[in-house]
Amino acid sequence: MNRNDITEKIITAKVAKGITWESVAKKVGLSKEWVTAGCLGQMTFDGKQAKIIGRIFGLTAEEQKWLQVVPYKGSLPTPVPTDPLIYRWYEIVSVYGTTIKELIHEEFGDGIMSAIDFSMDIVRQPDPKGDRVNVVLSGKFLPYKQY
Amino acid sequence: MNRNDITEKIITAKVAKGITWESVAKKVGLSKEWVTAGCLGQMTFDGKQAKIIGRIFGLTAEEQKWLQVVPYKGSLPTPVPTDPLIYRWYEIVSVYGTTIKELIHEEFGDGIMSAIDFSMDIVRQPDPKGDRVNVVLSGKFLPYKQY
Amino acid sequence: MNRNDITEKIITAKVAKGITWESVAKKVGLSKEWVTAGCLGQMTFDGKQAKIIGRIFGLTAEEQKWLQVVPYKGSLPTPVPTDPLIYRWYEIVSVYGTTIKELIHEEFGDGIMSAIDFSMDIVRQPDPKGDRVNVVLSGKFLPYKQY
Amino acid sequence: MNRNDITEKIITAKVAKGITWESVAKKVGLSKEWVTAGCLGQMTFDGKQAKIIGRIFGLTAEEQKWLQVVPYKGSLPTPVPTDPLIYRWYEIVSVYGTTIKELIHEEFGDGIMSAIDFSMDIVRQPDPKGDRVNVVLSGKFLPYKQY
Amino acid sequence: MNRNDITEKIITAKVAKGITWESVAKKVGLSKEWVTAGCLGQMTFDGKQAKIIGRIFGLTAEEQKWLQVVPYKGSLPTPVPTDPLIYRWYEIVSVYGTTIKELIHEEFGDGIMSAIDFSMDIVRQPDPKGDRVNVVLSGKFLPYKQY
Amino acid sequence: MNRNDITEKIITAKVAKGITWESVAKKVGLSKEWVTAGCLGQMTFDGKQAKIIGRIFGLTAEEQKWLQVVPYKGSLPTPVPTDPLIYRWYEIVSVYGTTIKELIHEEFGDGIMSAIDFSMDIVRQPDPKGDRVNVVLSGKFLPYKQY
Amino acid sequence: MNRNDITEKIITAKVAKGITWESVAKKVGLSKEWVTAGCLGQMTFDGKQAKIIGRIFGLTAEEQKWLQVVPYKGSLPTPVPTDPLIYRWYEIVSVYGTTIKELIHEEFGDGIMSAIDFSMDIVRQPDPKGDRVNVVLSGKFLPYKQY
Amino acid sequence: MNRNDITEKIITAKVAKGITWESVAKKVGLSKEWVTAGCLGQMTFDGKQAKIIGRIFGLTAEEQKWLQVVPYKGSLPTPVPTDPLIYRWYEIVSVYGTTIKELIHEEFGDGIMSAIDFSMDIVRQPDPKGDRVNVVLSGKFLPYKQY
Amino acid sequence: MNRNDITEKIITAKVAKGITWESVAKKVGLSKEWVTAGCLGQMTFDGKQAKIIGRIFGLTAEEQKWLQVVPYKGSLPTPVPTDPLIYRWYEIVSVYGTTIKELIHEEFGDGIMSAIDFSMDIVRQPDPKGDRVNVVLSGKFLPYKQY
Amino acid sequence: MNRNDITEKIITAKVAKGITWESVAKKVGLSKEWVTAGCLGQMTFDGKQAKIIGRIFGLTAEEQKWLQVVPYKGSLPTPVPTDPLIYRWYEIVSVYGTTIKELIHEEFGDGIMSAIDFSMDIVRQPDPKGDRVNVVLSGKFLPYKQY
Repeated sequence: MNRNDITEKIITAKVAKGITWESVAKKVGLSKEWVTAGCLGQMTFDGKQAKIIGRIFGLTAEEQKWLQVVPYKGSLPTPVPTDPLIYRWYEIVSVYGTTIKELIHEEFGDGIMSAIDFSMDIVRQPDPKGDRVNVVLSGKFLPYKQY
Repeated sequence: MNRNDITEKIITAKVAKGITWESVAKKVGLSKEWVTAGCLGQMTFDGKQAKIIGRIFGLTAEEQKWLQVVPYKGSLPTPVPTDPLIYRWYEIVSVYGTTIKELIHEEFGDGIMSAIDFSMDIVRQPDPKGDRVNVVLSGKFLPYKQY
Repeated sequence: MNRNDITEKIITAKVAKGITWESVAKKVGLSKEWVTAGCLGQMTFDGKQAKIIGRIFGLTAEEQKWLQVVPYKGSLPTPVPTDPLIYRWYEIVSVYGTTIKELIHEEFGDGIMSAIDFSMDIVRQPDPKGDRVNVVLSGKFLPYKQY
Repeated sequence: MNRNDITEKIITAKVAKGITWESVAKKVGLSKEWVTAGCLGQMTFDGKQAKIIGRIFGLTAEEQKWLQVVPYKGSLPTPVPTDPLIYRWYEIVSVYGTTIKELIHEEFGDGIMSAIDFSMDIVRQPDPKGDRVNVVLSGKFLPYKQY
Repeated sequence: MNRNDITEKIITAKVAKGITWESVAKKVGLSKEWVTAGCLGQMTFDGKQAKIIGRIFGLTAEEQKWLQVVPYKGSLPTPVPTDPLIYRWYEIVSVYGTTIKELIHEEFGDGIMSAIDFSMDIVRQPDPKGDRVNVVLSGKFLPYKQY
Repeated sequence: MNRNDITEKIITAKVAKGITWESVAKKVGLSKEWVTAGCLGQMTFDGKQAKIIGRIFGLTAEEQKWLQVVPYKGSLPTPVPTDPLIYRWYEIVSVYGTTIKELIHEEFGDGIMSAIDFSMDIVRQPDPKGDRVNVVLSGKFLPYKQY
Repeated sequence: MNRNDITEKIITAKVAKGITWESVAKKVGLSKEWVTAGCLGQMTFDGKQAKIIGRIFGLTAEEQKWLQVVPYKGSLPTPVPTDPLIYRWYEIVSVYGTTIKELIHEEFGDGIMSAIDFSMDIVRQPDPKGDRVNVVLSGKFLPYKQY
Repeated sequence: MNRNDITEKIITAKVAKGITWESVAKKVGLSKEWVTAGCLGQMTFDGKQAKIIGRIFGLTAEEQKWLQVVPYKGSLPTPVPTDPLIYRWYEIVSVYGTTIKELIHEEFGDGIMSAIDFSMDIVRQPDPKGDRVNVVLSGKFLPYKQY
Repeated sequence: MNRNDITEKIITAKVAKGITWESVAKKVGLSKEWVTAGCLGQMTFDGKQAKIIGRIFGLTAEEQKWLQVVPYKGSLPTPVPTDPLIYRWYEIVSVYGTTIKELIHEEFGDGIMSAIDFSMDIVRQPDPKGDRVNVVLSGKFLPYKQY
Repeated sequence: MNRNDITEKIITAKVAKGITWESVAKKVGLSKEWVTAGCLGQMTFDGKQAKIIGRIFGLTAEEQKWLQVVPYKGSLPTPVPTDPLIYRWYEIVSVYGTTIKELIHEEFGDGIMSAIDFSMDIVRQPDPKGDRVNVVLSGKFLPYKQY
C-alpha cells in the first residue's frame, strides 16, 4: 500500500458519489486549494482531518494513517505537462519567468518567493466578455543571506 | 540581427544606467509586468511604444523595428528552470497542477484559463512576519466546445 | 478505476463488435472528430451523451460517470510520437511551425490560434493521382492583450 | 556560410525594409505558405525563384545558390516548442493525435497522410464572435503495402 | 485487451513451439520481413491472413480481430535503442545520415525516400571471410511539391 | 581549427562551385557513399586521398592533414533527427527494428550485422509508378562468442 | 555584456594571477563559500563588496555593476553533472534523498530545509587513514502551512 | 520477488504500526541515517541486522535474505527530483556545485570527496528565529593519482 | 512469458538458495562473466547449457527454451546509470572516452574495438593499500573499410 | 580563456606537427593514458609537467597555468556517445553493467571499484585472427561503511 493507492481510491469514490472538493474543504474547515492538494496526495493531514476525509471517502483506519504520512510530492507525470489547462500554467512560467524574476528582485533584492510558506486562492470573476479565473498566489519573500 | 540582440542590448543598458523596470513601464503607460516581458523579448510593442523604449535604452531605428516584430516566445534556457526563484513557480505548477485543474473544472467545467487573454500583477504585501510577494493572475476561462 | 480503464474498455468493445467511430458520432449527434476524441479519453461528455456511449460500448453506470469527468489530456506516450501517421503531423509542426507563426502574425498580429475554441474536420478528397486526406482546422484567433 | 546565415539575412532584411511574406509570394508566383517556408530555410528554390528572392532581400549570387541547396529541415529549437502559437499546434497533435489516426484508418485503412505530397492554406475567416484562423491541410494518402 | 497482448502471446507461442518466422511467412504467402513485422505488432493483417496467423499461434477469434486493427507503431522501448544489433542500424543512420541525404538529393532533388511505399529484403551472403548480412531497402522517391 | 571547420569549408566550396559528390568520388576512385561520408566528416582519408580532396575544394596543407585525422563520428544534431529524409530512416529502424533483429537471429544466431565492416550502395531504380531509391546495405555478421 | 562574461573574466584573472578564493573571501570579510559562489555568478554582491572584488580581479566600473545584479542561478551545464567531484554530490542526493526526506519529516513534520536561508561550511578534517572533507550544511526548517 | 518489494513491505508496516526510523536504528545499533537508507533499499545489511529488521517489520526468512543482497541503488524516480524537500538538495548541488568543486580543489588538489567512505548526520539545531536542519557530510578525500 | 520473467526467477532462486555465480559458471564450464551475463538476460545459451542452468535454478522446460532465445539486450533502466558501482564505469567512459579513442586510433588507425568479439575478466588483485578490482577487456580491432 | 581553449590549441598543434601521444607521454615520464587524458582536458598537470607539455605544443606561460587548474571533467558532448568507438564502451557498460556489479559484489561485498584511484593500460595484442585491443582497468575496491 502507498499514498497513490489512497489518492486513487479517493478519486474513484469522488466520481462514484459525485462529491465536490468544495464540500470536502468545508467539512475539513480549510481552503479548497489546500484540502484538494491534500486529497490529491500533495499535502499531509493531521489525525483529525484524516478522519474527516476518511469518513467522506470511505477510507479504512490504515488508509487514514497514510493521509498523515508526508508524501513524495509532484503531481505531474512529465516534466512538461501535456494537459492543456496545466500547460498554460507552465507556459506562464516559461513566458513570464524572467519577468517575474526581474520584478521581484527589483522590489525585494536577491531571494525567492516561497512555495512553502505559500497560499493560493482560485476564484471566478464574472465578466461580461466571459468570466475569468482569478488566482491569488501569496508567498513569503525569503532573502538570500550573506554569511 | 535578431530579437535576442535587442534584449541583450536593453539589459546591458539597464545595468549600465541603473534603469528600473517600473520607470520604463510608467513612461510607456502600461503595467510593469507587460512592459518588462516585452523588454525581455516576450511581447510585441507598437511603433509608439518602441520609440519610447528605444529612447530609454538607446536603440537605433532598426532596433526599434525589432521590438515591433512578434518574437519566438519562451524565456527559459531549460525545460525545468534552474534558477531558484523561477523554479519555485515551476514547483507550484508541479505540486498544485492537478489541484488547479480540479478546482477550475469544478467551477467552470471543461476548458482552460487563458495564458493569452491574461494579466498578472505582482505586489509587495507588508507582513510583520516577513513581507510577502502577492501575485494576481487573471485569465479568461475558455470552454472546450462541442462540435 | 480511472479514465484510461474506460478508454481501454471502449476500444476493446469496438474491436470485438466492429463498431465504427462514425456510427458512434451519428448516435451522439456530433462530429466524428470530437466524439472520437472523447471516446479516446480527451474530451468530456455530458450525462446524456455518456448514456449513449455507455449503451454502445456496454459501460456500467459508474463507468459512464467517468466519461463526464474532465480527463488529464494528451494522448501520446512520448513527446515525439513514434507512430508514422502521427509523426507526419509532428513533422508538419516541425517543418512549417515558424511559417505558420509568421503568416498568422502577418495577418492578425501578436496572438495565437486557439486549440480550445477549435474544431477539426477530416475528409477524403478523391483524386485521380491518389485520394487525399483533407483536414480543416479552425481556431479562434486570440490576441495578446496589453495591460 | 550555410543556409541559416541566409535565413537570418532574409529575416533581417524583412524587418528593416518592412517586407511582407505575401508580397514575396506574389512575386515568386506561388502560395505564401510554401514561399515563406522556403525563405525560412525549409524548402528548396529553383534558380529563377532564387533570383527573385535574392533581389527582394538583397542576396549575393553565392547566397542565392544556397537557396537552391536542399536544407536540413526542422525549424524548431526544441522537441516540444515553447512559443505559444506553435505550441498550440503541438497540443493539437498531442490531444487529437490518436483521434486523427483512428479516423484516417477508418476511412482509408493502414497508411499515412503524406507530409511531402502536401499543401497548406492559412486563411482568415471573419466571425462576429472573433475572427478565426482556418487552415486547410491536404496530404496524399499513402497506403502501407504488403510485399 | 490490446495489440501488445497479442504480440506477447504470439512470441510466447513461437518460443514454446519452436516456430520460425520464415515458415509463418510461407503460410501467409508474403515476405518474411512484412509478416514478421506484422506479427510483432507493426503491420495490419487482413481477415484471411489473420486466420492463418491465428491458427499457427493459437489465437482466439477476438485476438484475430486485433491483428486487423492498425496498430500504434514503433517497436523500440527507447529513442536510442540499447540492443547492439538494433543500435548498429541506429549508428548507420547517425554516421551516414547526412551522406544518404546528400546523395539522394543529388540524384533526385528535394524529397524523401518513402518508408511507407517501402520494402525490405534481408539475405545471407556467403563470404569466405565471414558471411554477410545483405539488406535491400527499396522506397519510392517522393518529391516535395511546390504549390 | 577542427574537423567541423573543414567540413563546412568543403560544403561552402561545393555550393559555390557546383561540385557533385559523384565527381569527387570518381576522382578519389572509391564509392560515392564512402567518399561523401568522408567529406562530411565521418571517415578518414589517407594522404593521397586528402590531397585530391584538397585540390577539389581548395584546402590548405594543414586542412588536408585534418582529413587524415579520425573524426568524432555522428552526423546528426539531435538523437531523433528532424530532417524528413533522415527521419524516414530512423522510422525504419523504429518500426522494423525488432523485425530485423528477429530475422538476422533466425538466420545467423546471436550476433550483429557490423556497421564497421560495412558498405552501402544507393541507386535509382526506374519505375513507371515513380522511381525508387534502392539501397543495399552489406555488413559482416559478427557472432557473439562464448568464453 | 552579461554576468557570464564577468565570471569568465574573474576566473581568467584568478588563473593568471594565482589568486585563492580564501584570500578573496578574507578581503570581502565573509565566508569563502558565499564569496566563491558570488564570484562564480551565483550570488549578488552589494556595491562595497563589488568594489573589493573588482579591485582584486581588475574589473571595470560597469563590470562591477553586473556583480550587483541578481544572476540567473544554476552553475552546471547538464541536469546530471559529469564532473566526478560534483557528481558524487548528485549521487548523495540520489542514494540518500529519500532517507534525508524521511528523517527530516520524522523530526520536523512536513516542510523543507531551506536552500535560501542556508549556509555551508567546508573544512578539512585530518585523519590518519586519509584526510576527510567535512561539510556542514545548515538550512532553516520551513514548515508547510495549512490555510 | 525483489528488493523493492521488501522496501514497500517495510514502509507499509512502518505506517501501519507507527514505527520510527530512530527506534529501528537504536535496535540495530547504528546511525539513523545508514539504517534508514538500508531500510529504503540503498544499503546492505548483514545477517544479524537483517534479523533485527525482519523482526521489527515482520519479514519472512526469505525477505530477510533480500536485505543482505547488494541493491541496485538510486532512490529517486526522476533525474531531477520533483519532491520539494529533495529538490532543495538538488538545488544546492546546482547552485553551489562549482563552488564546492573550487574550494575542495583549492584545499586538497585534484580529486573527489568520497560518497562511499562517507557518513552523514542530520540534527535539529534550535534557533529562536526558527529551528534549523544541520547536516554534517563527511567523505574521505580521494586524490586522482598519476600513473 | 518473456525473458525478463526468467531473469527474475533466476535471481529470486539465487537469493533464496544462496547460489554463487561462480558455482554456476563452473557447472556450465565457461567464464563467470559470460555465464552471469547470460543468467541476467544478456546472452544466449544453447540447449545443453540451458538445461544445466534450468536444473540449478529450477526452471521448467519452457523457461529453458527462453534461455535459448536471443534477448533484447541492455541491462540498465536509465541511459545514465544511478547505481554507484555501475556509474563509475559510465564515468570512466565519460572522462576517458576521448583518450581511449585517441590511443586506439594512434595504434590501429580508424576503426573500433569490438564489443561482440569481446571478452572480459574480473579478478581481485591483493594490495596492501587495499585490494583492487582488475578487469581485462579484450576486443578484436575492427578497421573501417574503404569501398 | 578557459581549459577548452587550451585543449583545442593542443589538438590543433598535434595535427599540424604530427605529434603522437606516446611521444608526449615519454617526455612527461608517465603513462600514455594519463598524459593523453590530461592533454584532452581531463587531468591536472603540475608545474613541471605543464612546462614540458607547453614546450611540445607551443603554449604560452598563461596557457601552461591553465594545465595546472583542475578542469571540469567529462569529455563527451552527449550522455549517450555517438562516436562508434566510444559507443562500444558505453554498450559494454549497458550490456555487462549488471554482470560487473554482481561479480564485484560476490567477490568483495557492497562497495565500488574506484574511478579515481584508478589506472588504465591499453595495449595491442597480436592475434592471427586479427589483432585485439586489450585494456586493463585497475581500480581500488572501496567498501561502503556502516556507521
